[in-house]
Amino acid sequence: MDVFGGIEAGGTKFVCGVGTGTADLRTTSIPTEQPERTIVKVAEFFRSSAGQDLKAIGIGSFGPIDLDPRSETFGRITATPKQAWRNFDILGQVRQAFNLPVGFDTDVNAAALAEAEWGAARGLKDFIYLTVGTGIGGGACVNGKLIHGLMHPEMGHIRVPHDLAADPFPGSCSYHHDCLEGLASGQALRQRWGIPADQLPADHQAWSLEADYLALAMVNWVCTLSPTRIVVGGGVMQREFLFSMIRRQVTRLLNGYIPRRAVIQEIDSFIVPPELGNRAGVLGAILLAREAYRSGAG
Amino acid sequence: MDVFGGIEAGGTKFVCGVGTGTADLRTTSIPTEQPERTIVKVAEFFRSSAGQDLKAIGIGSFGPIDLDPRSETFGRITATPKQAWRNFDILGQVRQAFNLPVGFDTDVNAAALAEAEWGAARGLKDFIYLTVGTGIGGGACVNGKLIHGLMHPEMGHIRVPHDLAADPFPGSCSYHHDCLEGLASGQALRQRWGIPADQLPADHQAWSLEADYLALAMVNWVCTLSPTRIVVGGGVMQREFLFSMIRRQVTRLLNGYIPRRAVIQEIDSFIVPPELGNRAGVLGAILLAREAYRSGAG
Repeated sequence: MDVFGGIEAGGTKFVCGVGTGTADLRTTSIPTEQPERTIVKVAEFFRSSAGQDLKAIGIGSFGPIDLDPRSETFGRITATPKQAWRNFDILGQVRQAFNLPVGFDTDVNAAALAEAEWGAARGLKDFIYLTVGTGIGGGACVNGKLIHGLMHPEMGHIRVPHDLAADPFPGSCSYHHDCLEGLASGQALRQRWGIPADQLPADHQAWSLEADYLALAMVNWVCTLSPTRIVVGGGVMQREFLFSMIRRQVTRLLNGYIPRRAVIQEIDSFIVPPELGNRAGVLGAILLAREAYRSGAG
Repeated sequence: MDVFGGIEAGGTKFVCGVGTGTADLRTTSIPTEQPERTIVKVAEFFRSSAGQDLKAIGIGSFGPIDLDPRSETFGRITATPKQAWRNFDILGQVRQAFNLPVGFDTDVNAAALAEAEWGAARGLKDFIYLTVGTGIGGGACVNGKLIHGLMHPEMGHIRVPHDLAADPFPGSCSYHHDCLEGLASGQALRQRWGIPADQLPADHQAWSLEADYLALAMVNWVCTLSPTRIVVGGGVMQREFLFSMIRRQVTRLLNGYIPRRAVIQEIDSFIVPPELGNRAGVLGAILLAREAYRSGAG
């Protein structure tokens, strides 16, 4: 039976899957080591678990990555703070390991595709998929198509108001200090409070600040992208009380200026958790593989 | 000869045009008074200048407006601070005055269409059109199509960092105080400094602050929409020195994280003025009319 291979390439682990969708997906997790060594292990997994049935591979990668086929650095990871991976030709290395079509996009774009196919964004043409984990990333569909443009969105790096009197933490982003990721990612939470996000008590002052920053960012995306839903997952969002805090703040910050039921009366179904959990990325990579197979992309 | 009618509906004036494009456009300007009275004058202009040749009308309106045909308030101006116009059924009134197809979108979406057809965004599929005048508004194309989604973008109302120590002005937006429009619109400049933007000296401290806010907003849109160009016009941008100040700040704020020539080496052709000047809105309305005519929209 024809199957596809999906790679969710993350800074901590590579989640690899074989199958065609939610029903038959088999996955494994490979720790992210030196690039070449990691790719060898990925290739071993696909060879042993799919063999000749494998028809195409999809990669949803951490970034920034170069998605422009006309560019000299097409297929590479570019300005990442992870030194060993900077300028690594991930697409080229996977293509070299297999003589198959390979699809390539960001991890969050892949996850957005999967949530649109099987999850919380089923049937939606205009939505945002956001992940708040170690870092913050987002993908978005507009009129049913992923945003790419000049490169791809880097939504975690927008600037939001940062009241230094209330929150003197300078921010954790190595490129921008107090961009959204620098203020509200899991890494920022750990640096600011000295405690990992999953161990901060529910009544810790961290959480109202966290909800404020994420709500400010969501308001900016509502005003810019006019989505019909925001699907937000990732490790930090496992603290479920954040959802109601964020929703309340988004409605308050918009203050009736977007006079639509979705962001006022129906905010509970406007800002929602993903339905595919931590499988969204690898399932999206399967969709990238399927698309590459159909279009015959090298 | 078949011609189209375009209405750029603004808070100060309605610019009406008759023609098919840049070569044959004839325009008039009608001061914005009470809604019904204004529409009567608009109708008189089209009857006297086009008569039976008029095949369709397009409206590019200030907003927010309701663009959802399934909505009860479809075709209306909604949450505007302009009391007399709030909930005014602009589309319905124009349809009633003429038995013709009528196209309807925001003023900035219309202007974006015109710049893509004849101006500074010719041939581009992913770009932003921004106007910084009395208010701040933006339209954007993604994969060659305007963003609509839940409603339409309200890009002027994003939140950006506001250092109250450096700039104690509380902001002029009646909905959000210090959103971008509240900090950097022509109205904000006049309220903060007591002098209209066009009379502020070039060496006034207002301008570095203005460039900072606009650059912060553009960085947010680059990170969210990944445009290949930002076309920015409007009254405030007539102060041409702002362009180089904004470009410098955008490159500095991105700090190499978007490793693309467009936002580093080629920033001068990334952030550019419009080519259609103050005709972009009405020319865009002509395009909305053409589209309504082709699709037979009522």
